[in-house]
Amino acid sequence: MTILEQTIAAIRPADPAAVAEARAHQDRLTKPRGALGALEDVAVRLAGASAVSPPPLPTPPALAIFAADHGVHAQGVSPWPQEVTLQMVGNFLAGGAVANAFAAQVGASVTVVDVGVAADLDPAPGLRISKVAYGTADMSRGPAMTAVQATAALEAGIAVARDLVDAGARCLVTGDMGIANTTASAALICAFTGHDAAVVTGRGTGADDETLARKVAVVREALRVNGLAGPQGVPSGAGALETLAAVGGLEHAAIAGFILGGAACGVPVILDGVIAGSAALAAAALAPAAVDHCVAGHRSAEPGHAVALDHLGLRPLVELELRLGEGTGGLLAHPLVCAAVRAMREVATFDSAGVTEKEA
Amino acid sequence: MTILEQTIAAIRPADPAAVAEARAHQDRLTKPRGALGALEDVAVRLAGASAVSPPPLPTPPALAIFAADHGVHAQGVSPWPQEVTLQMVGNFLAGGAVANAFAAQVGASVTVVDVGVAADLDPAPGLRISKVAYGTADMSRGPAMTAVQATAALEAGIAVARDLVDAGARCLVTGDMGIANTTASAALICAFTGHDAAVVTGRGTGADDETLARKVAVVREALRVNGLAGPQGVPSGAGALETLAAVGGLEHAAIAGFILGGAACGVPVILDGVIAGSAALAAAALAPAAVDHCVAGHRSAEPGHAVALDHLGLRPLVELELRLGEGTGGLLAHPLVCAAVRAMREVATFDSAGVTEKEA
Repeated sequence: MTILEQTIAAIRPADPAAVAEARAHQDRLTKPRGALGALEDVAVRLAGASAVSPPPLPTPPALAIFAADHGVHAQGVSPWPQEVTLQMVGNFLAGGAVANAFAAQVGASVTVVDVGVAADLDPAPGLRISKVAYGTADMSRGPAMTAVQATAALEAGIAVARDLVDAGARCLVTGDMGIANTTASAALICAFTGHDAAVVTGRGTGADDETLARKVAVVREALRVNGLAGPQGVPSGAGALETLAAVGGLEHAAIAGFILGGAACGVPVILDGVIAGSAALAAAALAPAAVDHCVAGHRSAEPGHAVALDHLGLRPLVELELRLGEGTGGLLAHPLVCAAVRAMREVATFDSAGVTEKEA
Repeated sequence: MTILEQTIAAIRPADPAAVAEARAHQDRLTKPRGALGALEDVAVRLAGASAVSPPPLPTPPALAIFAADHGVHAQGVSPWPQEVTLQMVGNFLAGGAVANAFAAQVGASVTVVDVGVAADLDPAPGLRISKVAYGTADMSRGPAMTAVQATAALEAGIAVARDLVDAGARCLVTGDMGIANTTASAALICAFTGHDAAVVTGRGTGADDETLARKVAVVREALRVNGLAGPQGVPSGAGALETLAAVGGLEHAAIAGFILGGAACGVPVILDGVIAGSAALAAAALAPAAVDHCVAGHRSAEPGHAVALDHLGLRPLVELELRLGEGTGGLLAHPLVCAAVRAMREVATFDSAGVTEKEA
């Protein structure tokens, strides 16, 4: 078996006994039933994923920022020049980006992974060079990646997840950097959910009306050229890999692998924004049980993100109109996930605390 | 001047120069303009409150849980027996409540303040006894408190805020415990916003349909008996104090004082749920500038909370259908507030990082 196949085979779905035990335990804690709202579901979810109730505290967290460039940038889908991908990698490594500030807040390590930046990077502490190509090909003219490239990027993401877990991480947070990558995300979301480009394509990090219209047309053309136009249903197996290769980015493929790798290791993966959401669609198509190991960190301002999360059946924890990527929304959610688990692990029960229960 | 008057006089509104400088600085950071969504507003708000840009990191945080009982409990407005207030105080002091688990997650100290529990409490570490009365009178038959009691509770809250700031806290988080206190909150929200009881009264920690209907009727009766029925406009000054005394709880008054005290010390106050929201209406009526020092931690499932926040012009950071109180929603927001401030303090500018800006 290939590494990808081995990884997929190692992913277990949520354990029903742990889920049931977690739900029952929530109801014995000294709080009204359901009083922690969506956080109760998060704790139950992690119990299912780890197959133990209460689940382990998902800390320390590790952020991996997968960086890559996009051939489709040539179609004028972003107001930012392509070299900003490279410049922001430098900013991450220097500790000057928002992702660094948010990682410091939650105690997350930061690993930057070059899976496809369109320039050679000098080795640096915190940088992992796993370059598959100098950016993707232009998806509006044909497949963005070959199947071999997409597999290599997936396996690069798997390796990062494994290495971070081996180094002690107990929660993985997805991050991304790649000018034009919301265009690839929109195309992936269309291909995996059957929605129209106009519904899922957004302004990314600041497209004006004209650029947005062009972006929608480019996404539509990419789907047509690659034979993915119209409601597809969800491609799975080899079809999923082909779809990912056709309209994804190298960082999308790597993040899909990172999700699969985290799930295979039994460590929860907090998804960041629309890049992660679209990558998770690919991961879920390759291995449906991987979703049981994911938590949606936030919902970004990008319209396709809500579509992707809905398709995955995930409820975002933070909804503050962030539209930055880098892992920022995922990092913000980490303390919320920890709080949900702490409630399960540390709170007294009505019996143990001698608190009278509500009248029936 | 009384302590209350001195405190009100010490509260400064947001500093416009710091607000303008913070907004301008946000736009120079290496991120697209506005990409941090609502968190940018939080950082700007804290700059205004502290009159310096970037604002100081609001840490360490301190939670104060104000506990009290309610005469209106006798009307059958809650499915929980009154002694649960006392039992939960014991649970907080033993470290077994959800508030303790969430406080541990964010590194907050926990102080429990008895401002009106209907029983004598033994001294214990972490407990502050500032009892004003053994619970309020039944507001559906007359004023819940005298003006003297309400003032004493306000000043108890002010003293807690001052002492916590003197001890090093740089962010205050409001917490509450008091069986039947969502009934008093609903009445305060009606009185301060002019909304009808049916709109703002909710199920609290688990009222069934019959109890909810009774609760609405009791709130309506309390407003009528105390001459507060119908659209009032916002009472201010002495009218605000009388309104608070008529239909508030001792913990509501203490939390209003805690807010005023934090604002007077120039330390941000993160508001928890509907109890804090209704107390903040009273604080704002006494000192409108106090709101500039508040951050809405979350929006609870209680319908009156959204009404109160809307009236205060505050946007909640966490919206996860929590309905627990204790300060739990406020604590969850603390890392988000810190992240917002860290972005201002730690992120590189386009110039300093050598990152190319978006094309105009």
